[in-house]
Amino acid sequence: MTARDPYLLTPGPATTAAATKTAMLRDWGSWDGDFKAITARVRDRLLAVAEADDDYTCVPIQGSGTFAVEAALGTLVPAGGKALVLANGAYGKRAAETMARIGRDFELYATAEDTPPDPAEVDRILAADPAIGHVLLIHCETTSGILNPLEAIARVVSARGRALILDAMSTFGALPIATAALGIAAVISSANKCLEGVPGMGFVIARKADLKAAAGNAHSLSLDLADQWSYMEKSGQWRFTPPTHVVAALDVALDLHAAEGGTAARGARYAANHRAVVDGLRALGIEPHIPDALQSPIIVTFRCPEDPAFAFQPFYDRLKAEGFIIYPGKMTAAETFRIGCIGTLTPAVMDEVVAAVGRVLAALGVARRNAA
Amino acid sequence: MTARDPYLLTPGPATTAAATKTAMLRDWGSWDGDFKAITARVRDRLLAVAEADDDYTCVPIQGSGTFAVEAALGTLVPAGGKALVLANGAYGKRAAETMARIGRDFELYATAEDTPPDPAEVDRILAADPAIGHVLLIHCETTSGILNPLEAIARVVSARGRALILDAMSTFGALPIATAALGIAAVISSANKCLEGVPGMGFVIARKADLKAAAGNAHSLSLDLADQWSYMEKSGQWRFTPPTHVVAALDVALDLHAAEGGTAARGARYAANHRAVVDGLRALGIEPHIPDALQSPIIVTFRCPEDPAFAFQPFYDRLKAEGFIIYPGKMTAAETFRIGCIGTLTPAVMDEVVAAVGRVLAALGVARRNAA
Repeated sequence: MTARDPYLLTPGPATTAAATKTAMLRDWGSWDGDFKAITARVRDRLLAVAEADDDYTCVPIQGSGTFAVEAALGTLVPAGGKALVLANGAYGKRAAETMARIGRDFELYATAEDTPPDPAEVDRILAADPAIGHVLLIHCETTSGILNPLEAIARVVSARGRALILDAMSTFGALPIATAALGIAAVISSANKCLEGVPGMGFVIARKADLKAAAGNAHSLSLDLADQWSYMEKSGQWRFTPPTHVVAALDVALDLHAAEGGTAARGARYAANHRAVVDGLRALGIEPHIPDALQSPIIVTFRCPEDPAFAFQPFYDRLKAEGFIIYPGKMTAAETFRIGCIGTLTPAVMDEVVAAVGRVLAALGVARRNAA
Repeated sequence: MTARDPYLLTPGPATTAAATKTAMLRDWGSWDGDFKAITARVRDRLLAVAEADDDYTCVPIQGSGTFAVEAALGTLVPAGGKALVLANGAYGKRAAETMARIGRDFELYATAEDTPPDPAEVDRILAADPAIGHVLLIHCETTSGILNPLEAIARVVSARGRALILDAMSTFGALPIATAALGIAAVISSANKCLEGVPGMGFVIARKADLKAAAGNAHSLSLDLADQWSYMEKSGQWRFTPPTHVVAALDVALDLHAAEGGTAARGARYAANHRAVVDGLRALGIEPHIPDALQSPIIVTFRCPEDPAFAFQPFYDRLKAEGFIIYPGKMTAAETFRIGCIGTLTPAVMDEVVAAVGRVLAALGVARRNAA
């Protein structure tokens, strides 16, 4: 084990800055004005990152990103409504499972894990079924790391007069999302991905008019976004106890996001991380599973070496001993592992990862394959 | 403003120890073995604090205490079931609202905010309605600070063969809860009250057999305790991203709880805090609203001075400037404010609070009334 804490090469919770964690060294009264000011500041800045305009508001919600997705679906899709869920991985499937669980009608348009949804097919489905009021798209499906075609889908959904709900869990803050310009109805994300905050809260950027119209829709009290919003507007407080330290950490993480140069600069750093690890592992004979053109810079799925000496757990354990925590694969069709490029990582760290992978493969006795 | 951070004299989030907050200075991989070990250790120790036996398990859940209550109700009370909700304050009413929202049948037995539910009346209601399978009791209703009669209610519920769900949000870790001995079906609490952790997670202590039988009951994917439990048993992981820093902080907070001498010692310190603030404010002519015999040591509701020179906001602001954040009243029937006795506070701190209240009342020009 190295002296430093291990780097998290995961899709989040990711490695956060010392300043972000240090913000958690204070206790906040959740009812107090100082904490209300933090909440207001965080909400305003998240709206700005989303490129939203005055029609929109930001509603934070306790829990993980999945809680925020469920809150958005349960609040925005009314009990008699219907949604089209675009799925090419675990998170799209989970959204469909959520719809089933909360008793909302939906149609599933599933594509293979390495295949983005076809905007023309979405258009065809919407044309054929006027009951579909909402479309759920996963921006980056972290199952594989594939980036789905946001702009093309948004155009089709908009042209058909339907509402797009975007799960931007793994992209918000690193890839531009022109919420207002694209007319996206709701953007969902969480504190602990590309914003480099700590886990414990998600948020939904949605139109105020839609939230007002959604009063009473939700299947849950805790996950009622409309209620959360109206209470917050009235009082400046969260409806139920907020994760105060997590919110304070996100406030500092947003300072750092702005200081780095915002979404463009952060996305550029992640892209450089991504290039460093893909190029480096390719040179070791380890190939990404998704074609480069479809790949997000957030997380990369690599195919495990086809060598009987390779097994994921010892590979993981030895890399951890070198100070790097990687992520298992989640693809159903192939033996893979994942390397996340987000958090406070830099290309120099990714070069260290590549060197460590080289050492670990040699130690495991995995034969070096010819580089592609 | 004082140089130190203000003390939180609230019902939680409360003031936590420096060691607890310091535990948040590290990032944890949520999938990693080190973090799984923290989760397992926290679950085991919460079971021990609950005086549960091997029939029980502890299921942590992301979000605030209200999320944990909704998860327990939605998972344990089946869709065709019915619960009796005992309410004498805001949290009992919120539980009833939750039942209504998630579409579960319930009967409400409401008493005044200063009146505990009558066990004989509970017995009568259960005898009259065999459809009632579950009874929800709030152990300490933080609306007023009243302590409800857990043991008498548990005996009645048990004798009628029904299941008691206990909201122990404000008592867990400070007042003994003999879960197994009393045959309580489920005990719900959160990290940030008497356990002196930070906010962001709750937990439910429930029987494994009940959770197994409850598979598929829940109205929500995120708040499905049965699913959360079975996934955690299988993998050692949380189903969805855990608030890693919050969990790590609770682990340290539980160390401190044990080091202090467990529930008995913590309860004794809070009781001493409670005596110090009640005696001190009484001497200033400020009386608790609830009779001493019904009062928990967790939080005290005081009647505001009946003096035109008194107003809550300037009182609050000046106390905050002295380094003490108090809590507004939540009683519907009287003008009150609340002083929490939990967190890392000691009787010496409470004496400082009393002195500060004396100075603030004098500065506001509130006439000193005769002490009782």
